[in-house]
Amino acid sequence: MLQRTLIAHCKACGASVQYRLPDDGDTRERGVCTACHTIHYENPLNVVGTIPIWEGKVLLCKRNIEPRLGKWTLPAGFMELGETVAQGAARETQEEAGAQFELQDLFSLMNVVRVGQVHFFYRAKLLSDQFDPGHETMEARLFAEEDIPWDELAFRTVKETLMHYFADAKRHQFGFHQVDIS
Amino acid sequence: MLQRTLIAHCKACGASVQYRLPDDGDTRERGVCTACHTIHYENPLNVVGTIPIWEGKVLLCKRNIEPRLGKWTLPAGFMELGETVAQGAARETQEEAGAQFELQDLFSLMNVVRVGQVHFFYRAKLLSDQFDPGHETMEARLFAEEDIPWDELAFRTVKETLMHYFADAKRHQFGFHQVDIS
Repeated sequence: MLQRTLIAHCKACGASVQYRLPDDGDTRERGVCTACHTIHYENPLNVVGTIPIWEGKVLLCKRNIEPRLGKWTLPAGFMELGETVAQGAARETQEEAGAQFELQDLFSLMNVVRVGQVHFFYRAKLLSDQFDPGHETMEARLFAEEDIPWDELAFRTVKETLMHYFADAKRHQFGFHQVDIS
Repeated sequence: MLQRTLIAHCKACGASVQYRLPDDGDTRERGVCTACHTIHYENPLNVVGTIPIWEGKVLLCKRNIEPRLGKWTLPAGFMELGETVAQGAARETQEEAGAQFELQDLFSLMNVVRVGQVHFFYRAKLLSDQFDPGHETMEARLFAEEDIPWDELAFRTVKETLMHYFADAKRHQFGFHQVDIS
């Protein structure tokens, strides 16, 4: 899911970039342009999605794109400029599942430090069991807890979020879960 | 606080970049390299910090850097690769205030859509009232609620977080606040 490639050239002028400590007191190496001295920062990205529920069943999407083509996931994707975390989660649910839903509370915040990502999942109440998935999804299907393809899930954060979700559902009380994925 | 400049050149090969719909089904214009076709994504950034408390007073830092030089802020800064949201908040508190503290719960998540940022503040319990601020801070000082320089705060998210904090403190119950800053 990494969207990044190493910065070799300056985005401002196109000259070559050298990784070094900038001259402004920064304590981390950054890509600094050898010609115009523009500093290129690289920071974690947010991935935003939902846990869409219909009569106790969860909506999963079978991925039609790499990575993890053919694996099952909760609808989620990279947060875009111009939207809030919640708006991004709703947009991805619309795009990947074509679902009708009502967004509920933020349920999980998961740090995936190894790939420089933070994942957020909101609970969502489905308003229909009819779906119209976009091109990124082969199939959108409702799963009862006992039918979830645990070994065919696309991402650790999806698995952890689903495990917390069904544990909370049994208690009829939904928390806010912060998890670090190693 | 925007770290970004428009992408004019490709980070992979240095050729010029054109903003257009990529050929992969994406529905948003991206900077696409005219030579090697690398797609350049731009996404929101996370700003992470703390609300450090000592005997009911909050630690604020007077900014020694632009933007908002000379204004007061909670210790906070851009989340870096290689750390969790909480680790970033702790690091910024150490760097900007040189404070001894114990990190507590996540208190606020604030969408600042206009500048493409999400701000996170954790509560923190100060273990000492001695501070050793870094070069980004002119002065680190404890403020009782009635002494907070409300008109001299650096950022809307800091003001909103402090308002929620003191409201919750009066109730002796701290929530998790999600706010959209327009």
